Amino acid sequence: MSPLTAEIVQQDKLREAMERGVTDAELTEIARQIQPADLASFLQDLTRPEALRFLERLEPDLAAEVLTHLDPEHQYHLLDHMDPESARAVMACMPSDAILDVAGAIHPRQTEILLQWLPEEYRRKVRDLMTYPDYTAGSLASVDYVAARETWTVDQTLAHVRKVGPRVEVVSYIYVLDAGGHLVGVVSLRELIVSPGNQLLSEVMNREVITVPASTDQEQTARLVARYDLVALPVVDDVSGRMVGIVTVDDLLDVIEEEATEDIQRLGGTQPLEEPYVRAGFFTLFRKRVGWLLVLLLAEGITATVLRHFEFALMQVVALSFFIPLLIGTAGNAGSQAATLVIRAMAVGEVGPRDYARIILRESWLGLALGSVMAVAGFIRAIMLAQSPLVALTVALALVIVVTISTTIGTILPLIGRRLGADPAVFSAPLITTVADGIGLFVYFEIARRVLGLD
Amino acid sequence: MSPLTAEIVQQDKLREAMERGVTDAELTEIARQIQPADLASFLQDLTRPEALRFLERLEPDLAAEVLTHLDPEHQYHLLDHMDPESARAVMACMPSDAILDVAGAIHPRQTEILLQWLPEEYRRKVRDLMTYPDYTAGSLASVDYVAARETWTVDQTLAHVRKVGPRVEVVSYIYVLDAGGHLVGVVSLRELIVSPGNQLLSEVMNREVITVPASTDQEQTARLVARYDLVALPVVDDVSGRMVGIVTVDDLLDVIEEEATEDIQRLGGTQPLEEPYVRAGFFTLFRKRVGWLLVLLLAEGITATVLRHFEFALMQVVALSFFIPLLIGTAGNAGSQAATLVIRAMAVGEVGPRDYARIILRESWLGLALGSVMAVAGFIRAIMLAQSPLVALTVALALVIVVTISTTIGTILPLIGRRLGADPAVFSAPLITTVADGIGLFVYFEIARRVLGLD
Repeated sequence: MSPLTAEIVQQDKLREAMERGVTDAELTEIARQIQPADLASFLQDLTRPEALRFLERLEPDLAAEVLTHLDPEHQYHLLDHMDPESARAVMACMPSDAILDVAGAIHPRQTEILLQWLPEEYRRKVRDLMTYPDYTAGSLASVDYVAARETWTVDQTLAHVRKVGPRVEVVSYIYVLDAGGHLVGVVSLRELIVSPGNQLLSEVMNREVITVPASTDQEQTARLVARYDLVALPVVDDVSGRMVGIVTVDDLLDVIEEEATEDIQRLGGTQPLEEPYVRAGFFTLFRKRVGWLLVLLLAEGITATVLRHFEFALMQVVALSFFIPLLIGTAGNAGSQAATLVIRAMAVGEVGPRDYARIILRESWLGLALGSVMAVAGFIRAIMLAQSPLVALTVALALVIVVTISTTIGTILPLIGRRLGADPAVFSAPLITTVADGIGLFVYFEIARRVLGLD
Repeated sequence: MSPLTAEIVQQDKLREAMERGVTDAELTEIARQIQPADLASFLQDLTRPEALRFLERLEPDLAAEVLTHLDPEHQYHLLDHMDPESARAVMACMPSDAILDVAGAIHPRQTEILLQWLPEEYRRKVRDLMTYPDYTAGSLASVDYVAARETWTVDQTLAHVRKVGPRVEVVSYIYVLDAGGHLVGVVSLRELIVSPGNQLLSEVMNREVITVPASTDQEQTARLVARYDLVALPVVDDVSGRMVGIVTVDDLLDVIEEEATEDIQRLGGTQPLEEPYVRAGFFTLFRKRVGWLLVLLLAEGITATVLRHFEFALMQVVALSFFIPLLIGTAGNAGSQAATLVIRAMAVGEVGPRDYARIILRESWLGLALGSVMAVAGFIRAIMLAQSPLVALTVALALVIVVTISTTIGTILPLIGRRLGADPAVFSAPLITTVADGIGLFVYFEIARRVLGLD
């Protein structure tokens, strides 16, 4: 049975149980056989009062797990409307990074209320994590890890794991901290199991631990985890060096996906959306798009100036204007190809400064090769339509030169942007197309003037 | 110390040790303090004979770990040139998914040689996995997991984990198989540790296991793991239902990144590259780009026909031609925005068929709103340049209509494409721009004819 079919069958079972009027314990029992993520989908199809009632009937640990699969605003809404007793019990079971997400999504005053529901000690840790800005390793960190002291024996540590295990997110690794809260080593659960019970952690732990400062950008953090094939990465405070939490690979899966979405939106000439496209409001979408459209329109204004400059040519050979869209369109496409390839290669960390010269050279030659093919196709098209060999020759020559130039520009602009510290994806395909348009027209008419002898 | 600084310091230490002439055991000792991924970078800066010599001196398990961080061709080259004794020892320590990668990257005849180096039992399992096509869950699977029987006790299972632990990739979960090799349950190492030693696995294991058929697309597999926050996902054979391996979340991190790269390349009008851009050859890049460029050029040919159709208008009011690039450029940008947003939203699974109508409606209204703003800006630009209010009015009216149309087309084309079963990213931004160009010009001149009274 595929996961999706299974989901539907299970939801039916659940719905039927609710209608049948089972006890809370029975309902929890049935719900436990369903993945929390699927319960969350089920919840989203209920009305708000139904959803609340359903959550309150589940045991708090399961309710907490289900909640974490909803978006933060929705989580807060449900917690806020639950009876306070249940809300407190559920919150006590939620992982700290989920609480952090909720806290970050709501009004600061609401955050205060929310945090009051947490146990004292835990509240302090979560408050610490809240000091790290969004999109950093610190903002993704969870405090639900197993910590130990190097003076503990393997048996003591295993006993500790048994005690705190159900509460923490990742137990595959145990982090060994000194009295000041600094990470001094890490030991895997696997190593603990194979080691003699009376051995000290200081003897079995691995002292070479990869950590990230809390201020590290989330995308960089994700690349680190991918590079070193880690399951969880400890996060340390930038100043004190103390361990503040762990980032787990499943959170970074989302980060990589979100960052790619942002890059794609920028490449398409939209400012990145903060919410999923489907849920974004009309005005948000308008605001994120109108800015670039306007900038590009004003930049395109240069093409009108270039064309007026060559008005004499247009008046003498009107057929020249027939091929303007074809010429600048092709140039723009070639430029987009180069730009998206280079921008993506930079985004995934493939391109370093030592590659710049080679890439630019290679793309220029590619531009020339592609431009030559386009020239042949363009010549045939032009001669069929305009029936003037000289106009067709002009189109062909312009295509070679303009495709070469725009491919080169498409390569160079993102590289320059990066040198200047800008996000390379700001050099969207539309921007490169626009720049190429102005240059392309100028080249076209200069060639026309010479080939057709216009003055 | 940041990971990158640490890497440089460690590599210096290693280089110095090699020059000092330490014993093999000492070299391994020093190398063990460095992350395998960093050792792999170090290796890449050595000459081939140096790299071989270095690998042969390391203990096989470490050499194997280092190898897995190189690309498959490079791995094969090194294994092939190592002395056969060492190569065999290293291969015996390599995870099965790495062996699979190497086998997939080389000539079938070489694959046979490679597999001969593996222990008999293991070779059979790897050969089984090789039957699954690329880009499926089966092709990503690893056979290095811990399997157990439901009749085993917790203590027996822990003893088994201690024995096979060092050899397997993930020990956080133990997979319980029946005599026929079917997965009947899963138990986490954490649960094992907290359970009484004489309890049977059948009593502690969880019978609700999420699995994927081996033929599942890798992107879908990654989404499943992300949705259910899994660390590892068991893969079962489509036909027999037997468990064939596990896919781990760190492999899927790479999948999500690769799939995003492919989508970006398609959006930029390039066929997806199979290798990193930086390493792609000139001819490969040419081949992946020339096709779409040519198709788009031929499609743009329609604009030349439209313009010739309106030759009379161009001859009477040459100023009309000044605004052609601005008009179609802006329309193309608006269309690209809509298309990239919709395509990405579909790619990440946000948009379902029930959203289609709402999205199309919303985007049409957005097109109208954006078009109105563009019309004002375009009117001002046109009147400054052409000094003809009627031409400026034509430009403004055309902008409203054309931006609305191209935004709508940019939304609808990817949705239709999906209905027809095509990858939505095939509807690249350049394609939408091209379609919008032809329509845009037609609208522009029809308006001009009416506003300026041309015939």
